[in-house]
Amino acid sequence: MELLKSHRTIRKYKSTAINDDVLIEILESGIRASNTGNMQLYSVIITKDKEKKALIAPLHYNQPMVLQAPVLLTICFDINRFSKWCLANDTKSNFSNLLWLINGVIDSSILAQNICIAAENLKLGICYLGTTLYNAPEISKVLHLPVGVIPITSLTLGYPEVIPELTDRLPLNSIIHLEEYKDYTDEKIMQIYQDKENLESSRKFVTENSKENLAQVFTEVRYSKADNLYFSGKLMKMLMDQGFIPIEEI
Amino acid sequence: MELLKSHRTIRKYKSTAINDDVLIEILESGIRASNTGNMQLYSVIITKDKEKKALIAPLHYNQPMVLQAPVLLTICFDINRFSKWCLANDTKSNFSNLLWLINGVIDSSILAQNICIAAENLKLGICYLGTTLYNAPEISKVLHLPVGVIPITSLTLGYPEVIPELTDRLPLNSIIHLEEYKDYTDEKIMQIYQDKENLESSRKFVTENSKENLAQVFTEVRYSKADNLYFSGKLMKMLMDQGFIPIEEI
Repeated sequence: MELLKSHRTIRKYKSTAINDDVLIEILESGIRASNTGNMQLYSVIITKDKEKKALIAPLHYNQPMVLQAPVLLTICFDINRFSKWCLANDTKSNFSNLLWLINGVIDSSILAQNICIAAENLKLGICYLGTTLYNAPEISKVLHLPVGVIPITSLTLGYPEVIPELTDRLPLNSIIHLEEYKDYTDEKIMQIYQDKENLESSRKFVTENSKENLAQVFTEVRYSKADNLYFSGKLMKMLMDQGFIPIEEI
Repeated sequence: MELLKSHRTIRKYKSTAINDDVLIEILESGIRASNTGNMQLYSVIITKDKEKKALIAPLHYNQPMVLQAPVLLTICFDINRFSKWCLANDTKSNFSNLLWLINGVIDSSILAQNICIAAENLKLGICYLGTTLYNAPEISKVLHLPVGVIPITSLTLGYPEVIPELTDRLPLNSIIHLEEYKDYTDEKIMQIYQDKENLESSRKFVTENSKENLAQVFTEVRYSKADNLYFSGKLMKMLMDQGFIPIEEI
C-alpha cells in the first residue's frame, strides 16, 4: 500500500545497470496480471543497446531519461503471435477491429502497470512515455514491429538518482461517483481544481507561458488542438492501414 | 512481488460487505498511479445498490459475480470534468480525438490495475469484466454517464469464497524481444503454445465444443468474427457520436 501511495515518476537515473535476473523477475511478475481471455495479446521490447536508444530517443523528443535509464521497455499490443498460432491451426483470428484494439490497449496498460509496481518493489524507478503514441509508426520501424504489433506505451527503468516530491491529485471525492454519475456544476468544478491552481508550480507554469490561467496552459501550450489533431491523424492512418479501424464500413 | 505473482481472478465471493474505509483506502492508492499530464481523465462509478446491480448484470451477460460481489467499480475515461474546468476558464479542451481516447484507455487501465493491487493487498479479490466494452452505450445509460465519459472496464470486488488455481501463461521468453522484434516461425509458434494446448482444461474446451484444436475454440466459439464485428460496430458508433473518431476526416 505504501508502495502504491509513494509512487513518483523518476526522470533522473543512476548509471547502475539492471541485473538480468532482476529484469526477468519484474517481467515475470508483470505477465501475471489479468488479461482478456488469457490470450496475452502483448509483447515487450527491451532496449538496452546505446545505438538503438539513440535511434529511439528523438521519437520521444529527446527526453533525457530515454538515454539515461539503463533499460527502455516498449509495451506493444500484439495480435501477430496469436494470429500465427491460429493460422498454424487452420483457423483465422478475428482481432483486426476496434473492439480488440481497445482490449489490447487495456491489457498492455495493465501489464505495464504490473511491471511498474514490480520494479518499484525492487527499488527501481519508472517513467511512462506518452510520446509512444505520437510516433508509433516510426517506433515500429526502429523496433522492426510487424503488422499487428502496435506500440502502446513505453517505460524507462533504472535506479533513481533524484526522487522528486509527490505530485498533486484532485480530491478523491471528485473522481468517484456513488451509484450514478453526478455531473459537475461550475461552482463544484472551481472548488475541485482550486488546490491544483494554487500550487506554486501551477502559478509558475501560468506566468512562464504568459497565460491567464492553468487550464490555458494545458489547452494552448502542453496539448494544443493542432498537435492533438496531427498526432490523432497519424495514429488513425496507422490503425486504418492495419485494419483496426475500418475504412469502408464507416 | 508475491502479491503480483499469486494473482488470481476471483469469481466467487463471500457475502461480507467491504468497509467504506477499506474502499476509500483502495481508491486513494489507485489514483496515485501515473497518468497523462496528471490530468486524471477518469472517473470511477461505485455500484453497491442491489437494484442498480440488477440493471447492470444483464449488460455483463449475468455473470454471477456482478450480483454476488459486494462492490462493482466501473472505470471510465472522463473528459467531461476537465472540459468543464476549461470552459470555466474561458478556454476549450481538445480531447475529443483518437489520440486522447487511447491515452484515456491507458490511464483508466493503469488506474484499474492499481486498484486491483491495492484491493488484493487488503485480502480482497477482483475480476475484470471485459464485457464493459460490449455494452458501453447501455452501461452509460444506467450509470447516467454524460457525453465524454466512456466506460472502459469494470471490476468486481469482494472477499474470495473460492481461490482458484493459478492460470497458465506463455513462457516469458515468447513475450519479450531483446532490441528488436524477432518474428515467429511456425515451429517456434507450435513450441510456444504447446504447454497451453496440452493443459487438461484446454483439451476439455476442445472436446466440449467439438473443435479440432484450441485455436478454433478461441476463433469460432469464444470470440467469433460475427461477435467481434458486431461489438466493434456498436463501439465505433458510440465513439463517432461523441467525436473521438472523426467521420468526415477519414
